[in-house]
Amino acid sequence: MLLEQINSPDQLKRLSVEELPKLAEEIRQFLIESLSKTGGHLASNLGVVELTIALHYLFDSPRDKMLWDVGHQAYVHKILTGRREMFPTLRQYKGLCGFPKMRESEHDVWETGHSSTSLSGAMGMATARDIKGDDNKVIAIIGDGALTGGMALEALNHIGETKKDLIVILNDNEMSISPNVGALHNHLGRLRTNKSYNKMKEEVEQLLMKIPTVGAPFAKTVERIKDSLKYLVVSGVFFETLGFTYLGPVDGHKLDELMESLRLAGKTKGPVLVHVVTKKGYGYKPAENDSVVYHGVGTYKIESGAFQKKASGAPAYPAVFGNTLVRLAEQDQRIVAVTPAMLTGSKLEKFQATFPDRCFDVGIAEQHAVTFAAGLATQGLKPVLAIYSTFLQRGYDQVVHDVCRQNLPVVFAIDRAGFVGEDGETHQGIYDISFMRNQPNLVIMMPKDENELQHMLYTAVKHEGPIAVRYSKEAGLGVAMDEEFKEIPIGKSECLRDGNDVAILALGTMVPVALAASERLASLGIEARVINARFAKPLDTECLDELARERIPVVTVEEACIAGGFGSAVLEYYAEQEQVGMRVKVLGVPDYYVEHGSIAEQRAEVGLTPEAIAEEVRQHVAQKIQKA
Amino acid sequence: MLLEQINSPDQLKRLSVEELPKLAEEIRQFLIESLSKTGGHLASNLGVVELTIALHYLFDSPRDKMLWDVGHQAYVHKILTGRREMFPTLRQYKGLCGFPKMRESEHDVWETGHSSTSLSGAMGMATARDIKGDDNKVIAIIGDGALTGGMALEALNHIGETKKDLIVILNDNEMSISPNVGALHNHLGRLRTNKSYNKMKEEVEQLLMKIPTVGAPFAKTVERIKDSLKYLVVSGVFFETLGFTYLGPVDGHKLDELMESLRLAGKTKGPVLVHVVTKKGYGYKPAENDSVVYHGVGTYKIESGAFQKKASGAPAYPAVFGNTLVRLAEQDQRIVAVTPAMLTGSKLEKFQATFPDRCFDVGIAEQHAVTFAAGLATQGLKPVLAIYSTFLQRGYDQVVHDVCRQNLPVVFAIDRAGFVGEDGETHQGIYDISFMRNQPNLVIMMPKDENELQHMLYTAVKHEGPIAVRYSKEAGLGVAMDEEFKEIPIGKSECLRDGNDVAILALGTMVPVALAASERLASLGIEARVINARFAKPLDTECLDELARERIPVVTVEEACIAGGFGSAVLEYYAEQEQVGMRVKVLGVPDYYVEHGSIAEQRAEVGLTPEAIAEEVRQHVAQKIQKA
Repeated sequence: MLLEQINSPDQLKRLSVEELPKLAEEIRQFLIESLSKTGGHLASNLGVVELTIALHYLFDSPRDKMLWDVGHQAYVHKILTGRREMFPTLRQYKGLCGFPKMRESEHDVWETGHSSTSLSGAMGMATARDIKGDDNKVIAIIGDGALTGGMALEALNHIGETKKDLIVILNDNEMSISPNVGALHNHLGRLRTNKSYNKMKEEVEQLLMKIPTVGAPFAKTVERIKDSLKYLVVSGVFFETLGFTYLGPVDGHKLDELMESLRLAGKTKGPVLVHVVTKKGYGYKPAENDSVVYHGVGTYKIESGAFQKKASGAPAYPAVFGNTLVRLAEQDQRIVAVTPAMLTGSKLEKFQATFPDRCFDVGIAEQHAVTFAAGLATQGLKPVLAIYSTFLQRGYDQVVHDVCRQNLPVVFAIDRAGFVGEDGETHQGIYDISFMRNQPNLVIMMPKDENELQHMLYTAVKHEGPIAVRYSKEAGLGVAMDEEFKEIPIGKSECLRDGNDVAILALGTMVPVALAASERLASLGIEARVINARFAKPLDTECLDELARERIPVVTVEEACIAGGFGSAVLEYYAEQEQVGMRVKVLGVPDYYVEHGSIAEQRAEVGLTPEAIAEEVRQHVAQKIQKA
Repeated sequence: MLLEQINSPDQLKRLSVEELPKLAEEIRQFLIESLSKTGGHLASNLGVVELTIALHYLFDSPRDKMLWDVGHQAYVHKILTGRREMFPTLRQYKGLCGFPKMRESEHDVWETGHSSTSLSGAMGMATARDIKGDDNKVIAIIGDGALTGGMALEALNHIGETKKDLIVILNDNEMSISPNVGALHNHLGRLRTNKSYNKMKEEVEQLLMKIPTVGAPFAKTVERIKDSLKYLVVSGVFFETLGFTYLGPVDGHKLDELMESLRLAGKTKGPVLVHVVTKKGYGYKPAENDSVVYHGVGTYKIESGAFQKKASGAPAYPAVFGNTLVRLAEQDQRIVAVTPAMLTGSKLEKFQATFPDRCFDVGIAEQHAVTFAAGLATQGLKPVLAIYSTFLQRGYDQVVHDVCRQNLPVVFAIDRAGFVGEDGETHQGIYDISFMRNQPNLVIMMPKDENELQHMLYTAVKHEGPIAVRYSKEAGLGVAMDEEFKEIPIGKSECLRDGNDVAILALGTMVPVALAASERLASLGIEARVINARFAKPLDTECLDELARERIPVVTVEEACIAGGFGSAVLEYYAEQEQVGMRVKVLGVPDYYVEHGSIAEQRAEVGLTPEAIAEEVRQHVAQKIQKA
């Protein structure tokens, strides 16, 4: 085994070039075996085995900086930089992170999770290098999907202008997570499929040689044609237009070709883009055949690729969203769906199959997705934007400026709200309430179960203004689904359990947790009223007034950050009403970044369990008695 | 006067083509005269007189949709759509808005203010049109500066792929607000300066005719060259690569050329980009000569273009920022400055002149700007990102994911915080506290005067993590400036006036207002303690604990939205501490969009004046007595 000898890039460099293909094979087997037990991002890492080996073989990390865009393809990098033995803990609580993480290794110089950030980070590092007079390389590795993100295009524009020495590796695997979309992708496709690329280049050069080069007009023309060769040869036009030297396309699974291109890139002055064509899942048939399914996997059987069966339980919220949207769209022709490259994750496949002309995957382009939805809404349609909470941060200004300020009826279906589990701190969906609650016109809801989710979606498409439904990625509660949709009155909560010692105002996923807590409290002789808040905005002021009149202590619980969240809104309301003496405790996610693990572990860590909530409520009530 | 007959596009269409240049001249004179009295966006509107006339002459608004990107160039559009007589109230309280506004006219189908949104909006409208089976045109008018914004590039990518019928007018005036930057701009420059454009095209075609077209390899090559003509002729390569038909460049001040191109665009299937070259300030020499200065102006003398002198008073906060940063950068070589196209507005000219290699204008590219700063910070530099509060919304995910989560020492110099006056609701800088306060690691400050601003900037560059200083666009208080910088202890407030009846915790610009309120209160026999909070995060918990111990009612005041703001943080702290019975009133901007007017009018509208605050405090204290 070569792999066992490699715990650093220095040790890698001691191998001969001839040994590298064997190492690649070993790494591939290691990934397939290790991930079969832990799950993780399989297909993308199988695609970059040779690329990562070549980069660490030729360049000098950490002096040379490698920035892995999105970062879920950095497993091979982690293996080659001394973290192979931690793979059994991958993406587990307190274990190896699924993304680059500075505290894990000096070779992780840039943390990622969200897409399209690497070029800006690399540009910053290259600029700092030049200011400091250093001479290290800066290398950003970015997929063709991430390249369509607006901030990556902004960065290309800036890099191209400044002519910084900087290497961009375009890892072109023909898809982001869903099959890729967009005009830029089509352009890449033309490059890829142009098999006669070099042949044509030669032909053109021969042709030019045969043209008489004397005589003023012709000579000038020939000069111009030569200047424009890059346009002629259909190659890298886009990137060269922006000021890059374009190298490629090169086969990302042939180490010799790769090494040659990367060596050339290392010697090239100014920004250079190496177009590397890879195949997601390369070397493992099940993953090659369906790289969407094998993008992020649970555990599986190595031989067949078959996934370990999950205990069949309640449908997950995203699935309920997907199914409900199809039913709603059958009833209302105005409903259209928009997704920024998350068609599968957001469970819109059935919608797309049923209403192909009313479903829009705009690629990794959250800003455009939000404002595109706003444009649709101006014309009387009912756009439903399915977007993960953490990615909605990318479209924040568009939420404010284009949707809410124009008071347009866009439905934000905020998926992956609350904790997200194994993806960890970069992906937690805990900020949306606080960054959206400051917007006039906006309604923000969260359902207590999957049945309420369908009613909230129905309510949302009926509503004449901007409205958001946030929901967990988790399984629902397994409740019965009503056949008829019901409209929920905007801003109306629901009392689920009576009690006069304390009121727990719970939002969404925290409703069942609060109910469980109330059972524990009952056993301690504390009768808790449990209220399904439903709305983070507008608040149910009638309910809040009633609690104030009855002087019942309140505990708010939400799976979102405390700073500026739902509980904070309740505090603001009571302050505005001069409800002095009103006892309110706010439970939620405290002010630090909660790392990867299971959702249950993350909730337990911050005290969002029935036990912890019951204890908080008990103390809150006890203090009342003590202070009274 | 032709202009007096024109109160709608229909009336415009009754003019003969020959009369249009005269109308253009009248509009230009009207703008120069009217804006000399009110101020406003002069240069950009002078640049689009002919373009706007041509659009309304040829197309059929509001059936055909016109989306004005950024929107400050929509004055001519407003004049032609019945709002000429409202121009004396331009950008004034309750007067004509400086941007498109749906409630003003059915011809304003899309509201703007922030840049780069029009293409996404247009794509939404075109998509909705096709779903509904309508056949109207959709026309987005966007400047070359706004085109570098990431969301515009995302939209181009989407539009190019889908081949929607949609017209993009690229209004290329060689600059956004500051002279433009970026590789894409250089490409446009090459198109513009290529005077032999058509001549070259002819030459190449002639050349191709002379090449023998028999014989397999050559014939194929010629075919390919013909296919690639578009690349050869240096024209529209970028846009054609993305799938657009490219028309132009056309002189934006020659009505006949413009009309011809726009007519052709109207007949072209699929997305078409008309490249119109205009000159900002066209037809008014002072504005032509310095379109940066004449971008947004106050009142001026028509003959000379001389601005009415402002009463020379205290320096404005942005100027103090600019001067201080130069001084700090002289002492600390690690300090670099980043601006997204707001070099002049952010008062970085002197910094750029002094440290040209340490100043980075990245163009309209807020997302990239934030993460570029993060990249700089990873390498030991001290980047100071000068950015308007409202534009920081564009880089929100980057603030969260790249800066705060990685705990990088980026200094956010948040300009135009609080009310912004005449730009109105699209530009209010009132959300930053609530969308940033949820980030662990981040420090948020606001100075009470310009002297404290310099100390806060000094504190910020000394700090080893992400830190924000937000400040008003207004004049400071005219206080003496300390010669030596002082480090302010993080999270420490400052008591400015003693009193035990009530404590006013004021942030930034609200400190002098609170002091004035305290004088009024004193005359009513209420002694208010006035505390300069300085920090929205972290809070001065020692101070808050003391107030709780003394049971002094608290009133918080901030020039920011109440929802999730500084006052909300105070409420959260007292709730966490179980400080039941603690009386807190939160004053700030309530939950609606505050429109254009002067900053003083905006503050008055929401009760952020000494009088209004004194009255709120009086009631707060009175209620205590009543309830006690």
